[in-house]
Amino acid sequence: MVYDAKFFKEKRNIDVFLYHEATRILLQRKAVMIRNTATGEGKEYSYDKLLIASGARAFVPPIKGLDRKGVFTLRPLEDGIAIKEYIGSNSPKNGLLIGAGYIGMEMAESFTEAGMKVTVVEKMPSIVGTMDDEITEIIEKELNSKGVKLLKSKAVAEFAGEDSRLNRAILDGGEMIDADIAVVGAGLRPNSEIAREAGIELGKTGAIKVNQRMETNIPDIYAAGDCAESYHLVLGRNVYIPLATTANKQGRVAGENIAGGEVSFPGIVGTAIFKVFDLEVGRTGITEKEAKVEGIDYVSNVIEHGSRAPYYPGVSPIRIKLLADKKTGRLLGAQMVGREGVSKRIDVFATALTVKMTAHDMRNLDLGYAPPFSPPYDPILIAADELHKKLQGKG
Amino acid sequence: MVYDAKFFKEKRNIDVFLYHEATRILLQRKAVMIRNTATGEGKEYSYDKLLIASGARAFVPPIKGLDRKGVFTLRPLEDGIAIKEYIGSNSPKNGLLIGAGYIGMEMAESFTEAGMKVTVVEKMPSIVGTMDDEITEIIEKELNSKGVKLLKSKAVAEFAGEDSRLNRAILDGGEMIDADIAVVGAGLRPNSEIAREAGIELGKTGAIKVNQRMETNIPDIYAAGDCAESYHLVLGRNVYIPLATTANKQGRVAGENIAGGEVSFPGIVGTAIFKVFDLEVGRTGITEKEAKVEGIDYVSNVIEHGSRAPYYPGVSPIRIKLLADKKTGRLLGAQMVGREGVSKRIDVFATALTVKMTAHDMRNLDLGYAPPFSPPYDPILIAADELHKKLQGKG
Repeated sequence: MVYDAKFFKEKRNIDVFLYHEATRILLQRKAVMIRNTATGEGKEYSYDKLLIASGARAFVPPIKGLDRKGVFTLRPLEDGIAIKEYIGSNSPKNGLLIGAGYIGMEMAESFTEAGMKVTVVEKMPSIVGTMDDEITEIIEKELNSKGVKLLKSKAVAEFAGEDSRLNRAILDGGEMIDADIAVVGAGLRPNSEIAREAGIELGKTGAIKVNQRMETNIPDIYAAGDCAESYHLVLGRNVYIPLATTANKQGRVAGENIAGGEVSFPGIVGTAIFKVFDLEVGRTGITEKEAKVEGIDYVSNVIEHGSRAPYYPGVSPIRIKLLADKKTGRLLGAQMVGREGVSKRIDVFATALTVKMTAHDMRNLDLGYAPPFSPPYDPILIAADELHKKLQGKG
Repeated sequence: MVYDAKFFKEKRNIDVFLYHEATRILLQRKAVMIRNTATGEGKEYSYDKLLIASGARAFVPPIKGLDRKGVFTLRPLEDGIAIKEYIGSNSPKNGLLIGAGYIGMEMAESFTEAGMKVTVVEKMPSIVGTMDDEITEIIEKELNSKGVKLLKSKAVAEFAGEDSRLNRAILDGGEMIDADIAVVGAGLRPNSEIAREAGIELGKTGAIKVNQRMETNIPDIYAAGDCAESYHLVLGRNVYIPLATTANKQGRVAGENIAGGEVSFPGIVGTAIFKVFDLEVGRTGITEKEAKVEGIDYVSNVIEHGSRAPYYPGVSPIRIKLLADKKTGRLLGAQMVGREGVSKRIDVFATALTVKMTAHDMRNLDLGYAPPFSPPYDPILIAADELHKKLQGKG
């Protein structure tokens, strides 16, 4: 998207083979079998250093009628273009989204703005599974107020229609939903098969296991991006959270090391932000749900405070949920939702998590104050202070 | 403003004596002389613990005609109300601002929006002295584009007029400026006289010297807010930077310790943000100017990058200037200007400065990414990465 093959050749003298697929890694020969997808021809390329950057693909649940016209996944880029073209030429009236994750939320907004009546079907009992209920309840209200219909704990069994086109979806229980376009956004799976088949170690997540230098367990083979795991600085172990920012950083580190450098990517803290209609939503670290699964002894707190000085036009409430380790007070995670001022405030927490700050340390941070941008006590400081009091048994 | 005397009495059983002035602290007797400003009557009040929270006053340079109608300072609150009333009943056409600091910038916007032709006179060769030229040149462009006239390296000698009102200002060189309202915003001075006269130690800044518990050098006497110094975590010594956020935090810490608690205020990093017309401006840590004065061996860098994904509507450039210690790479300061997304990004740097992060550490931060709010590589990461390269001699 950003660069093309010509750019790489001309500016950096890198050969890019489009329409070529790597089919097998031959460890002993330090080579890769490459198939020209246009001609079907296969050829062996040898390497000194190899980077696997094979990305991820959309997970598509086993639903009948996936091949109907009007049914899309949202990966890779071509899917996005195809969806746009389909909307342009078919003017669908009823949009159906399978999965209420970040993509589902963003698509709900896009489809509504394209004039569709939108239904979101989520198989779990709550939307945006990477967040806790105190945050998702506000997102649900926003979806409601914009006319988006939300069906939780439901799954689509079949995409149906009169001809080859999608006209309706049938839920597991038999319920029918009008739909002339549907997007399945049920998460990503790493394209790690080529690595696994070569005997390169995968993590428990199914993605390629790498160290901080982005090296796999096989010498001279690196992996980076959506096909690889990341080290989670709060959890203290590898996770699979495929996001563009992480992929970018991993790619740089792998590239620099392959070129003889000596750099490392320390890891992530699980930061993610998205926009859904008039809401900004963000999270970093771990949620209460995750803390429970991990068996971590935590204290959590929810506060609401204004985005600007109370008298300043445009002020709106920001809700923050924080988690800290009960014994040490170390911050474990932050979630936030509001109409403004969320995305960068989450970055303050992400920075704090990276350096293992406590709620006590955070409440004294020297954050900026000006009436158009924050109240004298920023919501960040209020949240940290309240959590600190709770940790001390005074909250 | 936020609470009144009645609130304190009813909700917290605290007696508040309005129209009373503390005139002397009697250390030996652990008492304070209080004068009722309405009756002139004096009375002695004894204390177990004493908090000095006497604030600051506007510094007013020696200009002739300061007593003319239409000449204001911007401290205390009453001045703001008086200015508003004066504008309402006199509809001034030409507004004059003495001093191009934060207040001068904010007033330039307010006066322009109130329909005035605005002139700002600054005695130093650059505006907003707490920032470097790479930032202030963008602010100057903005002021220009909004029709604000800027006179640098100039000082007002006299406020003049036909009757008791202000009609014009005369500069040191004799130049005349039409002005029917003027605001003098030439900085603040701590109200520390009562402390000094009692023998309480002041810092080199002239403000009351306090430790992290907000204790003065005299047992049982505390100071907090705009009358007191703060410890600067980057400079490693006390400074006088009177800002509302710091005052709030110091007050809480002093109060908690006076009530028998054991808390401390670690210090500040010099964060400040303000809005001027369509610009957000922020700074934290120290500037290049300050680093030179301090004799610190630094490396600095200036970058410009988009506030959102390049294709997202509303994207605008953010300029960031960073400073790091040349030997250790430890971040020393950040300055930023742009049309959006500045105020909270500065908070990320403020957090990083607090924990003494290096440029190298910062470039790997797991900051949020979503097209409406940031590019995949946030301007923060680009700035840190470029500075890191420069530190390594690769920039």
